[in-house]
Amino acid sequence: MIDFEAIANPGIRGLRAYDPGHDLVALRRAHEGVLVELGSNENPHGPSPAATQAVLETLSQLYRYPDPLGGDLKRALAARLGVGISQLMLGNGSHELLMQFAQVFAGPGREVVASQFGFAVYALAAQAAGAPLRVVPAFARGAAMPRGHDLDAIAGAISPQTALVYLANPNNPTGTWFGADAFAAFMARVPESVIVVVDEAYAEFADAPDHASALVLQPRYPNLLVTRTFSKAHALAGLRVGYAVAHPDCIAVLERVRESFNVNMVGLSAAQAALGDEAHLRWSLARNAEQREMLAAALRERGYFAHPSLTNFLLVEFGPETQRIEAGLIARGVVLRPMAGYGLPECLRITVGDASENRRLLAALDEVLA
Amino acid sequence: MIDFEAIANPGIRGLRAYDPGHDLVALRRAHEGVLVELGSNENPHGPSPAATQAVLETLSQLYRYPDPLGGDLKRALAARLGVGISQLMLGNGSHELLMQFAQVFAGPGREVVASQFGFAVYALAAQAAGAPLRVVPAFARGAAMPRGHDLDAIAGAISPQTALVYLANPNNPTGTWFGADAFAAFMARVPESVIVVVDEAYAEFADAPDHASALVLQPRYPNLLVTRTFSKAHALAGLRVGYAVAHPDCIAVLERVRESFNVNMVGLSAAQAALGDEAHLRWSLARNAEQREMLAAALRERGYFAHPSLTNFLLVEFGPETQRIEAGLIARGVVLRPMAGYGLPECLRITVGDASENRRLLAALDEVLA
Repeated sequence: MIDFEAIANPGIRGLRAYDPGHDLVALRRAHEGVLVELGSNENPHGPSPAATQAVLETLSQLYRYPDPLGGDLKRALAARLGVGISQLMLGNGSHELLMQFAQVFAGPGREVVASQFGFAVYALAAQAAGAPLRVVPAFARGAAMPRGHDLDAIAGAISPQTALVYLANPNNPTGTWFGADAFAAFMARVPESVIVVVDEAYAEFADAPDHASALVLQPRYPNLLVTRTFSKAHALAGLRVGYAVAHPDCIAVLERVRESFNVNMVGLSAAQAALGDEAHLRWSLARNAEQREMLAAALRERGYFAHPSLTNFLLVEFGPETQRIEAGLIARGVVLRPMAGYGLPECLRITVGDASENRRLLAALDEVLA
Repeated sequence: MIDFEAIANPGIRGLRAYDPGHDLVALRRAHEGVLVELGSNENPHGPSPAATQAVLETLSQLYRYPDPLGGDLKRALAARLGVGISQLMLGNGSHELLMQFAQVFAGPGREVVASQFGFAVYALAAQAAGAPLRVVPAFARGAAMPRGHDLDAIAGAISPQTALVYLANPNNPTGTWFGADAFAAFMARVPESVIVVVDEAYAEFADAPDHASALVLQPRYPNLLVTRTFSKAHALAGLRVGYAVAHPDCIAVLERVRESFNVNMVGLSAAQAALGDEAHLRWSLARNAEQREMLAAALRERGYFAHPSLTNFLLVEFGPETQRIEAGLIARGVVLRPMAGYGLPECLRITVGDASENRRLLAALDEVLA
């Protein structure tokens, strides 16, 4: 018999796939449609109606390949972001782009640096590329930005072997962020040959005055790559559309590994339409901000610590009872995301739902705690 | 300034992205909707109405992530193919799967073998993985299967350095195929440690008595991987769904590089519905076979050589006038696929359209030739 692991590439041998959490399809069937799904940071306010309409308009064209250039969506993004089309690359979600950066720039002897409690995909990307990963300790639990990225320590960890740094702002699963000034100081310390990726999957939700997109520094730093997604604020997770913004020379090299038809036709159309509906986006972000504050306050009232968050989720410490609480919530049809895989077994990550979902979560929690 | 090519991995440096052909979006705009698109081997008979209906049913759920396990589609495929669910892996089109096989099993010193005139993605997969590529000459133009895979020569080219062999049956862009007996003899010669991929993207169209799916040999050969797609016979190219069938141990290793949400929600639902509509598939295949024979006969009448084809396209020799003919057709709004990139500058690949498209192609061709 063949030992497939033995004949696979070294990077693959130790790799474990990303853990997407509970089997929601099975849970939905078990709970017959009354599941409260707050485990995947989806946006319950839904996509723009214009995006749904755009899906309808593709129905007669499904037998065609999608536009391999993604031209219409890239033109819309370029206009919105004030960048050139040649600075944009589209991905099958930003997950695909994050994997490709390591595939292209990291490898054996060319190290990846990321923060403790950074998004799990960064470690997978490094490992799939066969690159060593250096994990830099996050801020302490008691710091001003508990468990957030420590940019000073990350800059200090960069060595001549470093090829690629992954940051997230705000970060998943902590919800934390770093300020514009700290990031500018960080970039000034990073050698030009080191690629810095800032994953801004949750950036649209960020409403603190000290937060800024890394895009503002891109004209100065050609080694700075920014990723965004339509899965979160634009509520199109099912359609898998993300994008990267980078220097045109960098995009030209990255484009070589992109599969021509990596973004599906429905996703291209829906994303373009969603981008055009600024009013819906603002409405959705306002609902999220309001519900996030309500939920954080309700959890604090119950004695739990919720990390500061500029996102659509809260990382909450439930202490030694975490496992029991999570099991009790699952039994009551409320799904959160366990955090043991991130080294945070006493925390759960809670997506900010709509008002009704959040009420049901709190009611179920009170039952479990009773 | 950064030289991004210099800091990229060696395999990436020489890589050029897959050429998807003409910019169809620009051509559509230039020709205001009267374009005859016969360049991408799309299925003009369209998907099952059940697939379109399944898309509609996802509209309220687009903010959710797709099922990362693809469980419902895999169960339907397993039942249809008579294999276990653990033998299946889903891809963002089979393109993604073909790339991943090389990523996992090939690399520097671990060679990829493919046929001359094989699908272009095999060479890209080898190069992206940094693997040497050995291209085996195809049968001669005058052979019984002109420019088809020469399985004897391919088996002879396998060396101790060979990790992976890519075959296509039927092959794109030639339309040619190899018979069940020749393939059984081939597999008997391949060492067990060499992975053999048979790309069956066009297999549903194959209606010759000597053609058989490689799936029948899979119980005997754990090193045999088969890929299929919903883009061709099932007419869902826009939604990007492909799958691989392999030994469960092989799938388990491959699954480690799969991105959890690589297949979008709309694609999963539509593919499952399409699979359930056997009558539509049979109708579509019959239309294709009838139009393929008509088109091949019409081209022969005009003195052109069409390679034997079990697919939904014809590889046709137009001789030294090929470039002029292609330009003349484009000017008349008829898009075919130029073949210079495959080393066949005197050929064009023609998708078998519906009756009206084929008539318009032939009328435009007669104008160009007049």
